[in-house]
Amino acid sequence: MPILNKDMQVCISLAARPSNIGTRFHNFLYDELGLNFMYKAFTTDDLEGAVRGIRALGFRGCSVSMPFKEAIIPLVDNLEPSAVAIESVNTVVNEDGFLTASNTDYEAVAMLLDERRVDPTQRVLLRGSGGMAKAVVAAFRGVGFEDLTIVARNAEAGPALAERYGYRWVAEEEAPGYDMVVNVTPLGMRGADEQALSFTPAQIEAASTVFDVVAFPSETPLVAAGRAADKTLITGAEVIALQAARQFERYTGVALTADQIARASEFSRAE
Amino acid sequence: MPILNKDMQVCISLAARPSNIGTRFHNFLYDELGLNFMYKAFTTDDLEGAVRGIRALGFRGCSVSMPFKEAIIPLVDNLEPSAVAIESVNTVVNEDGFLTASNTDYEAVAMLLDERRVDPTQRVLLRGSGGMAKAVVAAFRGVGFEDLTIVARNAEAGPALAERYGYRWVAEEEAPGYDMVVNVTPLGMRGADEQALSFTPAQIEAASTVFDVVAFPSETPLVAAGRAADKTLITGAEVIALQAARQFERYTGVALTADQIARASEFSRAE
Repeated sequence: MPILNKDMQVCISLAARPSNIGTRFHNFLYDELGLNFMYKAFTTDDLEGAVRGIRALGFRGCSVSMPFKEAIIPLVDNLEPSAVAIESVNTVVNEDGFLTASNTDYEAVAMLLDERRVDPTQRVLLRGSGGMAKAVVAAFRGVGFEDLTIVARNAEAGPALAERYGYRWVAEEEAPGYDMVVNVTPLGMRGADEQALSFTPAQIEAASTVFDVVAFPSETPLVAAGRAADKTLITGAEVIALQAARQFERYTGVALTADQIARASEFSRAE
Repeated sequence: MPILNKDMQVCISLAARPSNIGTRFHNFLYDELGLNFMYKAFTTDDLEGAVRGIRALGFRGCSVSMPFKEAIIPLVDNLEPSAVAIESVNTVVNEDGFLTASNTDYEAVAMLLDERRVDPTQRVLLRGSGGMAKAVVAAFRGVGFEDLTIVARNAEAGPALAERYGYRWVAEEEAPGYDMVVNVTPLGMRGADEQALSFTPAQIEAASTVFDVVAFPSETPLVAAGRAADKTLITGAEVIALQAARQFERYTGVALTADQIARASEFSRAE
């Protein structure tokens, strides 16, 4: 048992329904790197009080999940461009009482698109219009994609999201012919529509790149279909690990290697 | 490395200058007993914000040290008799957002006097008039001691403390003839007057019971003199361990054995 000590820097997370993923990811790497940090997930029914506590107790950082990503904005002191771009925060760093907010979901998606060298002239078909869809659509815009169609049944959120980032909205789209398909809905998610394929086989066949934001399971029907057809793949497991790594770097100042991220991600999911 | 998890109950401490003692004492026993708890010391310059954070994040408990023992009183919901007796709090327990405060220093002193079967008709000479002296004097009154003389150079705090609990005050006392000597000053404390003997050799010789509240080092000049002369002894190390044990029981609901307290105390001091 490594006994905790008074000098540890503390990072927390806030979510309506905390998972163990972040707690395991960050503590695994603190241990491996010998950093005197600890990380613990919390929930709260008093976000303002929680932020007051972060300041009063000098916590180093706070990861922010649903439903606090927008509500926390007026409680911080500064927004980085990643948070401004989507008016949504998933990371808060405390520098001597000055709270700076950013969005590493946005950053992770942008980095993965860049890393896989996805051509921004690709025609993109993206399904979804919720909070995470906002981060993903904003990242596509930030990276320079011009031709993106949002498919969403929600006739308010869908058009609003499309209009905000200068893209097109349709309520449904069965036709193939897009270079890239991107799922940002719960289709394929454990406990939701786990068996559901979020695009038609013809749409997947026509695309050269397949991107599924669903992280649990890591092998969704869409990911499996994309892998079987040897498409360029971006998975939700990669997004969640990379966004956590970006948080880690902000909290500790330590940049992670791809191998460290991969092992921490594996550990965080193996509970 | 035992990775932390989201379901751990969290206890903290608040002090101007935190030590590692509580953090090591509590976590040692959480580990030994297999309790899903963690404990971490903090300081703060915003006590109200810290208490707001305790509520908002659902911390289970908070140990309170100088200079917050009185200031925290208006921030809690309920005071136990131990805290009322001395208007000083060192322990806060959070039951679903309802904060109850108590003082386990008071309880520990009263329990040790009882456990050593010190006769309450003994004539007591007690040196000191600070915050901890208040807890100790109140405990002597609570246990039923009638004849107690407070020695304190502070001509305001000394008489005020004596009057409050119906005892006698003197600015100095060189004469022997008391059954018990009690030191509640920094005399004999590491970093302070470490070599100083808080009572005269004649006073120690005349007493049957020797009580030193100084906890660091555990073997002060007064404790050493009392031990050499085979007096009934109560040490500061015992007080600090027993008060921590009482906090532990309040936070976890688990009563500790004397052996567990002794081993956790030894571990907490061995850094």
